[in-house]
Amino acid sequence: MELILAKQAGFCFGVKRATHLAFEAADKGGETYTLGPIIHSPQVVQRLEEMGVKPLDDVNDLESGTIIIRSHGVAADELQAAIRRKLEIVDATCPFVKKAQEHVASLSRAGYDVVVVGDADHPEVQGIVSYATGRVYVVGSGEQARQLPRMSKIGVVAQTTQSFDNLQDVVTACLSKGGEIRVYHTICDATAVRQAEAKALSGQADCMIVIGGFNSANTKRLAEVCSELLPHRTHHIETACQIEPAWFDGVEKVGITAGASTPKWLIDDVIDRVREIERQIDSDKIR
Amino acid sequence: MELILAKQAGFCFGVKRATHLAFEAADKGGETYTLGPIIHSPQVVQRLEEMGVKPLDDVNDLESGTIIIRSHGVAADELQAAIRRKLEIVDATCPFVKKAQEHVASLSRAGYDVVVVGDADHPEVQGIVSYATGRVYVVGSGEQARQLPRMSKIGVVAQTTQSFDNLQDVVTACLSKGGEIRVYHTICDATAVRQAEAKALSGQADCMIVIGGFNSANTKRLAEVCSELLPHRTHHIETACQIEPAWFDGVEKVGITAGASTPKWLIDDVIDRVREIERQIDSDKIR
Repeated sequence: MELILAKQAGFCFGVKRATHLAFEAADKGGETYTLGPIIHSPQVVQRLEEMGVKPLDDVNDLESGTIIIRSHGVAADELQAAIRRKLEIVDATCPFVKKAQEHVASLSRAGYDVVVVGDADHPEVQGIVSYATGRVYVVGSGEQARQLPRMSKIGVVAQTTQSFDNLQDVVTACLSKGGEIRVYHTICDATAVRQAEAKALSGQADCMIVIGGFNSANTKRLAEVCSELLPHRTHHIETACQIEPAWFDGVEKVGITAGASTPKWLIDDVIDRVREIERQIDSDKIR
Repeated sequence: MELILAKQAGFCFGVKRATHLAFEAADKGGETYTLGPIIHSPQVVQRLEEMGVKPLDDVNDLESGTIIIRSHGVAADELQAAIRRKLEIVDATCPFVKKAQEHVASLSRAGYDVVVVGDADHPEVQGIVSYATGRVYVVGSGEQARQLPRMSKIGVVAQTTQSFDNLQDVVTACLSKGGEIRVYHTICDATAVRQAEAKALSGQADCMIVIGGFNSANTKRLAEVCSELLPHRTHHIETACQIEPAWFDGVEKVGITAGASTPKWLIDDVIDRVREIERQIDSDKIR
């Protein structure tokens, strides 16, 4: 059985940085907390908890210690509260998300009404939106953008994982809504590149394994992309123990990819497990 | 025979203003010149010449007197030369064109590479472009915009008579060329409204007469729009004397429209001439 691991499987730049900063803080010891899950990987969150890093819902519950800001960023007032409480802050916000937050703040200051292209329920978007000091709207599509009121100056910023097509649709809709439109292209192409590679891999493989948190939007999307070509042979798992030997009946090529929040150790575990199942199948054949 | 005159036939806001300023200057007397044709109507230019207003190609040829800046605007250095030479300046630049010039100047100052959506050969575009102090490109379509190099900050401004669809295509292309795109919606909708009305009128009439300078891009486009529905029964003329009686054989409804540079007196002449031909046809029938 041939195993093909996607080149872009696993940690993106921002998640790698955030995880590194979190484990570094954990190594130092002391009272250490993360504001929300550091990344969308329950296994990484659990490992950090085992090292004494506790997740926290509200920064106001904390009197002292170190607070790690998750990769998706937090709301402006939460960061301010941490500063006011003189907590030690480890800011693991993805630098691309940080840029989007800064653009929203400067657009607001310059008198623009801000349109954020993204998913209103996503913590990254909730964080970005909080940096607006004037009017701000979240739209998920061009269709939603066409419902916006007329504005004189419109600033557009995108959630970093949005598709470029969606940004284009929203900008096109905004062009007929105002006299000036200022767009910051805040999309990180890691997501698009990972999806394109997964799609290509699905075209070659007989079976796809997609590894990543069940709470991770980008991993779910990755599994959807693979399912388009391999509807019954795409398996979204969090850990190696969820793999079933029956998936490999008659399979010659297995493709493996992983979401942006999936650590290397989970990917290695999956590869080891698939190899183990393969050996089992082979020895069954000999017997 | 029913005659239907388009509501939007003739002078737009900018042309009306420019013509008013020019005739006002002509009435005052003294040495008066226009830099290029004041508007794209040979008949208006001729009438001004009869009043002593002479067209001039180069402002540096002039030592004293009054210079009228045409509705399409002029290059920044020509305006500067007129100021340096202490000429009396009547600035008849269309206020919408002026806005586009100002946006290009401020975008350049703020470090943007500027993209002007328009026809590179048109005097309005040549004027607008001249206000850039940094890099500037003229593109006629999204296709041409896709050939642009990558830039960090892109400012987009449109020739005032461009179609909105074309601006959208260029902005979409620019989104993948830079990290920040700032668009000024400088399109004046008078052109689009006039074209839409001409199209609707062509659907009702048996014959269309389009009045306007043969050198006027918007009049030519108007004739094209009408030709789509009445390919052999659309007639682009400059003056009433170009009308042929044979055009009205078997015609019940005549639609009339005119470009943005066509004065009311030329439209009235055309209506009078068509009525005269109608009377002639009727009296021939009686005999």
